[in-house]
Amino acid sequence: MNAGDIAARLDDRLDIEAYADIDASPNGLQVGPASQPVEHVAFAVDAAVETIDRADEAGADLLVTHHGIVWGGMERVTETNYRRVAPLIDNDLALYVAHLPLDGHQSLGNAAGVADLLGLDNRAPFGAMGGEYIGQRGTLSEPQTVSELAGSLEGNIDTGGQPVQVLDFGPSTVEDVAVVTGSGVDWLQEAVETDADVLITGEGKQKAFHEAREQGIHVILAGHYATETFGVQSLQTVAEDWELETTYIDCPTGL
Amino acid sequence: MNAGDIAARLDDRLDIEAYADIDASPNGLQVGPASQPVEHVAFAVDAAVETIDRADEAGADLLVTHHGIVWGGMERVTETNYRRVAPLIDNDLALYVAHLPLDGHQSLGNAAGVADLLGLDNRAPFGAMGGEYIGQRGTLSEPQTVSELAGSLEGNIDTGGQPVQVLDFGPSTVEDVAVVTGSGVDWLQEAVETDADVLITGEGKQKAFHEAREQGIHVILAGHYATETFGVQSLQTVAEDWELETTYIDCPTGL
Amino acid sequence: MNAGDIAARLDDRLDIEAYADIDASPNGLQVGPASQPVEHVAFAVDAAVETIDRADEAGADLLVTHHGIVWGGMERVTETNYRRVAPLIDNDLALYVAHLPLDGHQSLGNAAGVADLLGLDNRAPFGAMGGEYIGQRGTLSEPQTVSELAGSLEGNIDTGGQPVQVLDFGPSTVEDVAVVTGSGVDWLQEAVETDADVLITGEGKQKAFHEAREQGIHVILAGHYATETFGVQSLQTVAEDWELETTYIDCPTGL
Amino acid sequence: MNAGDIAARLDDRLDIEAYADIDASPNGLQVGPASQPVEHVAFAVDAAVETIDRADEAGADLLVTHHGIVWGGMERVTETNYRRVAPLIDNDLALYVAHLPLDGHQSLGNAAGVADLLGLDNRAPFGAMGGEYIGQRGTLSEPQTVSELAGSLEGNIDTGGQPVQVLDFGPSTVEDVAVVTGSGVDWLQEAVETDADVLITGEGKQKAFHEAREQGIHVILAGHYATETFGVQSLQTVAEDWELETTYIDCPTGL
Amino acid sequence: MNAGDIAARLDDRLDIEAYADIDASPNGLQVGPASQPVEHVAFAVDAAVETIDRADEAGADLLVTHHGIVWGGMERVTETNYRRVAPLIDNDLALYVAHLPLDGHQSLGNAAGVADLLGLDNRAPFGAMGGEYIGQRGTLSEPQTVSELAGSLEGNIDTGGQPVQVLDFGPSTVEDVAVVTGSGVDWLQEAVETDADVLITGEGKQKAFHEAREQGIHVILAGHYATETFGVQSLQTVAEDWELETTYIDCPTGL
Amino acid sequence: MNAGDIAARLDDRLDIEAYADIDASPNGLQVGPASQPVEHVAFAVDAAVETIDRADEAGADLLVTHHGIVWGGMERVTETNYRRVAPLIDNDLALYVAHLPLDGHQSLGNAAGVADLLGLDNRAPFGAMGGEYIGQRGTLSEPQTVSELAGSLEGNIDTGGQPVQVLDFGPSTVEDVAVVTGSGVDWLQEAVETDADVLITGEGKQKAFHEAREQGIHVILAGHYATETFGVQSLQTVAEDWELETTYIDCPTGL
Repeated sequence: MNAGDIAARLDDRLDIEAYADIDASPNGLQVGPASQPVEHVAFAVDAAVETIDRADEAGADLLVTHHGIVWGGMERVTETNYRRVAPLIDNDLALYVAHLPLDGHQSLGNAAGVADLLGLDNRAPFGAMGGEYIGQRGTLSEPQTVSELAGSLEGNIDTGGQPVQVLDFGPSTVEDVAVVTGSGVDWLQEAVETDADVLITGEGKQKAFHEAREQGIHVILAGHYATETFGVQSLQTVAEDWELETTYIDCPTGL
Repeated sequence: MNAGDIAARLDDRLDIEAYADIDASPNGLQVGPASQPVEHVAFAVDAAVETIDRADEAGADLLVTHHGIVWGGMERVTETNYRRVAPLIDNDLALYVAHLPLDGHQSLGNAAGVADLLGLDNRAPFGAMGGEYIGQRGTLSEPQTVSELAGSLEGNIDTGGQPVQVLDFGPSTVEDVAVVTGSGVDWLQEAVETDADVLITGEGKQKAFHEAREQGIHVILAGHYATETFGVQSLQTVAEDWELETTYIDCPTGL
Repeated sequence: MNAGDIAARLDDRLDIEAYADIDASPNGLQVGPASQPVEHVAFAVDAAVETIDRADEAGADLLVTHHGIVWGGMERVTETNYRRVAPLIDNDLALYVAHLPLDGHQSLGNAAGVADLLGLDNRAPFGAMGGEYIGQRGTLSEPQTVSELAGSLEGNIDTGGQPVQVLDFGPSTVEDVAVVTGSGVDWLQEAVETDADVLITGEGKQKAFHEAREQGIHVILAGHYATETFGVQSLQTVAEDWELETTYIDCPTGL
Repeated sequence: MNAGDIAARLDDRLDIEAYADIDASPNGLQVGPASQPVEHVAFAVDAAVETIDRADEAGADLLVTHHGIVWGGMERVTETNYRRVAPLIDNDLALYVAHLPLDGHQSLGNAAGVADLLGLDNRAPFGAMGGEYIGQRGTLSEPQTVSELAGSLEGNIDTGGQPVQVLDFGPSTVEDVAVVTGSGVDWLQEAVETDADVLITGEGKQKAFHEAREQGIHVILAGHYATETFGVQSLQTVAEDWELETTYIDCPTGL
Repeated sequence: MNAGDIAARLDDRLDIEAYADIDASPNGLQVGPASQPVEHVAFAVDAAVETIDRADEAGADLLVTHHGIVWGGMERVTETNYRRVAPLIDNDLALYVAHLPLDGHQSLGNAAGVADLLGLDNRAPFGAMGGEYIGQRGTLSEPQTVSELAGSLEGNIDTGGQPVQVLDFGPSTVEDVAVVTGSGVDWLQEAVETDADVLITGEGKQKAFHEAREQGIHVILAGHYATETFGVQSLQTVAEDWELETTYIDCPTGL
Repeated sequence: MNAGDIAARLDDRLDIEAYADIDASPNGLQVGPASQPVEHVAFAVDAAVETIDRADEAGADLLVTHHGIVWGGMERVTETNYRRVAPLIDNDLALYVAHLPLDGHQSLGNAAGVADLLGLDNRAPFGAMGGEYIGQRGTLSEPQTVSELAGSLEGNIDTGGQPVQVLDFGPSTVEDVAVVTGSGVDWLQEAVETDADVLITGEGKQKAFHEAREQGIHVILAGHYATETFGVQSLQTVAEDWELETTYIDCPTGL
């Protein structure tokens, strides 16, 4: 297969068309000719000099990431853009990106991965954005305290040494769990309106503190990187099913 | 003095007009009649149910905050808006807000407060936004390691129990320090281009990790709340000079 | 029932969702907590200090109006906004608003009320706006002169002492009648194109004179207030069916 | 002189360039070749079939109006547009339009004409719009009741048989008078903030009633046409000074 | 029939409604009263002084063109606008315009006319623009060289004496032909992606040279006027079927 | 010098900052690290695979062009973008672009080059665009026919074998000459209003024919490429003054 073939398959599987108007990330093949032959695919959360170099060292022909190198449009291939584009081109390494489509995919996506880890039942799309969803919700098999829930996350994800932070303003035990990975506190209101007991996301924002407190809902901030390793690892499994050689590049940011 | 008089003085002192087109926060008097008599002013970082209640308990007639309750415009005075507006009105408590003007004021502002704490010299405006500045830069009296610098911050600000986080990618000792309080990683590029050794801000974002690493600059994430207590406390001193009774309401968020 | 329950019923009955993108008025509950218990509902054309005070004096828990207090968004709760919000909050009086949805509702709405008064047959939606309608048209049971028609309006609506004004440029007798209450002369062209003999609306605009004259159509200007008492009075009947106590507050403006 | 020469002189005298970005009316020559020879100029408030026909009957080569026939841009020269353009072209009658520049000109304009009529002193620009002004304010030589003031207007302008309407919510006598002719109630807030006792304008809007009442200011609605005859008549005098033959076409609308 | 009747028939036949939001040309009747009686219709590519005069000389009551006289909206009927509108009005000549609808109509349109000329089979819409199409593609009955293809065009269209220009970068023989008449090089990418061998259009743009060369596709530039005589001539046949007298006005531009 | 140093000098010399908001081309360094050492600079009108390859063959470290490879922003480095970026990066060849600043520079620019060729006197900026100019005008030392003028152009520029085209609608001899190179017919109106006898530009557009004819002005279409070789050749001279080795790559398009 070449990069174009793999891109076409992934575009279809992740329905990237549906997210085209709402995502600042141009999803799909971001760098490289469609004709690039691909035997070995590397996977990482971020496309950056570090992960590009390690993909090259692993012998990959294609790097698949959640965060790409273009947001909106690239005005110049200089400075940071050059630092990232040059090693891709020099090493014949193509780059495929799936941002919001990989957040929201209900079985392969990041939120689905968190839900799998926690064993949530009664899954449903969560995190509305322009007619699509970028998260998932579900129920715990039995009620837990928010500390227990935060603890199961902390023990099973790579937070880069940073603590999982809890805004402990909800009920004494939690059962309904809403997940938007990465930077998801803007969906706190949807969590309240749909009667979630807790919103799990990655990064925090100052405004979430009082909003959570005043509405009596928990927020768990488990790290942007830590909550977004699931999607690319799901795609790695998909690629293995296509009989491609694969490598996962772990590069936690602690953010 | 009434609320209108105080608002007019603060509007003038902070030059809020200059920030009118670039700030989503309507700065100045946000709630209350200008005719409200004011003897006692409370100060807090956030306008929220908790700080409003404590301002009322302290006997304040006016609450001055950095983060207000309106962003853009309030469509309805229901739910969260109602929870915050109702106790202000019920208790004859007016609300004055200074957001970006208080970030950027070169002697009273948040970044200036951080710079005072660190004893920076050679101060200059930093953090360009639409023709104005929302931060400040300066030099340490002598070079330090980034850990020493992070340590002096951590010992002197209220991080709500959260660690100060360092993205340790810059030189072995730092001297040129750029500060944008709150959520300031979007000014990382300006810090690089102006040869800062370190950018101090509050909240992080995932993208900052690789950007800092690839460009060899340190980032210190000292907390959104923790870096933004300075401005309102400066205004408290100003209000005392006007012979008003004052109260500072500390309500750290750990964010 | 509480304010939220009543709002949900009215939102549904008036299909306010359909008008969300075309109306500068945020329709639905504008002020008050959804949890506000409601036994007594007041109805008025305008939400203003006068009608709010009279609703409170009548013992109402909820005021329902056609013109609310927020258009677009409220930047500050000061001056006029404060004067209106404060007595609502001080008196635990919630505010529900239905603007364009109440103009256009084909049985409960303002234009439908004018059509009822005139006994129009063959009713059809009129007054196209972004895919919805904000008026109604129909035919008189037998032809009248425009003076007779204006007379039947003037005798049955509260113009606040102002004359009903006729731009007398149409046929000697009229049969096809188009109605857009309030400020509706912008629909004169639609009236011409759909062969109405007369457009009935509330307020005039200078440009209507020559447009009507040159196209040979009558315009009756019966007053903004006077043509818009019908909708809220229809809702009063609805509320009575729900076994709520009700009051209608008449406050004609002469405009 | 030809139409182009006269247009250039009027453009300059009225500073139409300054209003180019804020006026939906393309001011200056709207119809006709610049080369059209002009000996006789007709003046009217509105450009419409009636005034165009009467200008032609008077033997005019150029018609100067306050309201033209193009607003924004003319998509088609059909229906109403055709009815107005055709007789202009058929009769070699050019059309010059001055809308907001003629409202706001401080000596030749519509508001200035109202101020002259009332003998206002201490004149100053009023009615801010995008950096320009479209009205004027001043003080009466001695205080009057608002009824007296409305009376002097009514006796001296052509309201087309309609009553001058007073929203009688201000002080018992008035001295500070703000004027925006035509449709000017949107400047009620500026009138309040600059301590006017009364706002004189032409057309009303429903919202003005409660806004005036709650802020204790009078509004006099003297008619759109009636308040806007002054500007074109001033230009008539100017044209006479240029030794052109002139005609004023009176066509009151009662609006 | 009058101009309005004919316009309604043509609007319907060409589905001009579908192109309303994507075309800068207001399609349909552009000048003239709908009531204009029409016995004789003239057809031309461009509405300009030359073609208007010749339509009048031919005794036409209606001129139908592909390029009209209004683009967006006409701010003033002066200079060039006056030069074109005046003779239309003076001579009671109405103007009907069909721009993109006539480019894209799959049997009457300009591209369809080129396809007819070349005898293309397997016709399909080509030239996507906002959900509609403005061109057509098809296959030659047998492969030709691009020179042969350019030659058959040059021999059968009126290029005003200018050479047909070939960007000769595609395969040695061509079979799949894409056509967007007028100014169509912006659809080069669609031609490449849909495996056309050659794009035929009218005017060139500098950027097309290297884009065609690098992607190995031919471009034939046969002239804007020359490729757009087909649509209006098809409409002429339609008008003859309606038993109207007709005239075609040939006025090649060489562009 | 490195690429950054040269870019800074050229940015300054061409005042690219002034054109930043009006040019879809990101001017300045478009590809490559600022740190790239530069000894040899190649110059071409277009940045494309052909010119990039030839610059590399010539041993250049930097390619300076008038048309770059980014317009607006590059969403993906794939297909055409990849074909052009890859050889730049693979060969350590940086790319510097000056589009409108090089059209409009009054001594180094493209229009200035045409004016030099024709020996125009009384030079002045021409071709207004958002407060800047992108062309130049001047007078011939003595009147010529438009054919003579077209002939002197044709004999001295590289039209790639295409004829210079003349729209011969102006006076019998010409003296005032306006120049906007490339695609400049949109400035025909400015040429008319400023009394030019002829507009010289590169590419034509259909609409220019009748506009020129009706206003009695000549247009000379001398080719987009052919009129835009002057600016980059002027920069070549500048680079030679900086003691850099240089190459000019001629690649006429015939467009």
